[in-house]
Amino acid sequence: MTRRTLDIGKAVLEKNQGLADQLRSDFAEAGVFVVNIVSSPGSGKTELLAKTLDNLTQKVPTGVFVGDLATDNDAARLEGHGAPVLQINTDGYCHLEANMIRAAAEKLDFRGLKLLIIENVGNLVCPSSHDLGENLRVVLLSTTEGEDKPLKYPGIFKSSQLAVITKVDIAEPLGWNREAAHANIKAVAPQIQIIETSARSGAGLDEWVTFLLEKAASKS
Amino acid sequence: MTRRTLDIGKAVLEKNQGLADQLRSDFAEAGVFVVNIVSSPGSGKTELLAKTLDNLTQKVPTGVFVGDLATDNDAARLEGHGAPVLQINTDGYCHLEANMIRAAAEKLDFRGLKLLIIENVGNLVCPSSHDLGENLRVVLLSTTEGEDKPLKYPGIFKSSQLAVITKVDIAEPLGWNREAAHANIKAVAPQIQIIETSARSGAGLDEWVTFLLEKAASKS
Repeated sequence: MTRRTLDIGKAVLEKNQGLADQLRSDFAEAGVFVVNIVSSPGSGKTELLAKTLDNLTQKVPTGVFVGDLATDNDAARLEGHGAPVLQINTDGYCHLEANMIRAAAEKLDFRGLKLLIIENVGNLVCPSSHDLGENLRVVLLSTTEGEDKPLKYPGIFKSSQLAVITKVDIAEPLGWNREAAHANIKAVAPQIQIIETSARSGAGLDEWVTFLLEKAASKS
Repeated sequence: MTRRTLDIGKAVLEKNQGLADQLRSDFAEAGVFVVNIVSSPGSGKTELLAKTLDNLTQKVPTGVFVGDLATDNDAARLEGHGAPVLQINTDGYCHLEANMIRAAAEKLDFRGLKLLIIENVGNLVCPSSHDLGENLRVVLLSTTEGEDKPLKYPGIFKSSQLAVITKVDIAEPLGWNREAAHANIKAVAPQIQIIETSARSGAGLDEWVTFLLEKAASKS
């Protein structure tokens, strides 16, 4: 009996890539810097994002797309922080794709924004292979998640330019091993920059917000 | 600032559903019974499948589609067990979709088969929302995985008609709690049937193969 191979994912992903490249070009023309935030569920994406918007939206016009499996809880939590928020309900779909961002961009006008932040669906596997037309991919890693996450999910770290460690305020009671966490991140993704934050204590927020402001300014 | 919602996943999944229904109708017309096997990585899908084919292919013409992220290792392992095998390389895509099965069905002719087994990409989340046109969804749960998996991933158990527990030969040294495993499966998926197996010892293989043979016969 024969064995054969069908490379179908390649075609699907190439289609996504073509759409993502088009989106990136449209965003560039409008002068918008686009950030795609990925992480596992419960890493503190939404909490960090709410605090980030509080420190950001007075300085630079920012919009938010929030991907979620079913609810619009995250969009509700992000309301009232100075940015228009569009919830992308994926209805069980495990990651965002470029065609969803295209549809979202037709609903929330990105022209006039300087920064567009996309909060991806909580998932460390599937979002890694889907370019959304972003200029920067940020992976979040919580101190509660264990220092070996980068070794288990190398793809998402390899494809990101920045790793934001969250919840450092509870690092000590957790016995979080900072050195191991950094070493594991760098082992799989030597290119990556690391910022440590706590949405609760405010630690690292200045560094993170300044980073985003500089990126947004680079597009003007 | 306003908050709005875009229900994009629904449209994507409806498209998949339409395609899956068409596939199911085509399979029915050809008299093929289609099984979609889902599980987390390392649950023993391929090993079980190899042993299953050894006991099955003399009795009923069977074909196999094997979904995998990158390699064709699984197809190689399934070669020589009496069934034509088509590897579907998803190139990082985390689950199979109906359009991939459509493309695969154009490459491996299913007419003349009585049974088509689809080994999905190892993943307990994303495959649950994607109908592939199958007649039966089987979720595998290894004794090495912990008895709480059904509670953590209810979607995949709810959408399956059969749960096959694998690697029961090592249940005892693992301290696997049979009662808890069964109770957790039934708690999230009361409809589900459970078969315990070991590809290594052969335990339960008769029951599993007989189950498949009866299903295949029901299509004739």
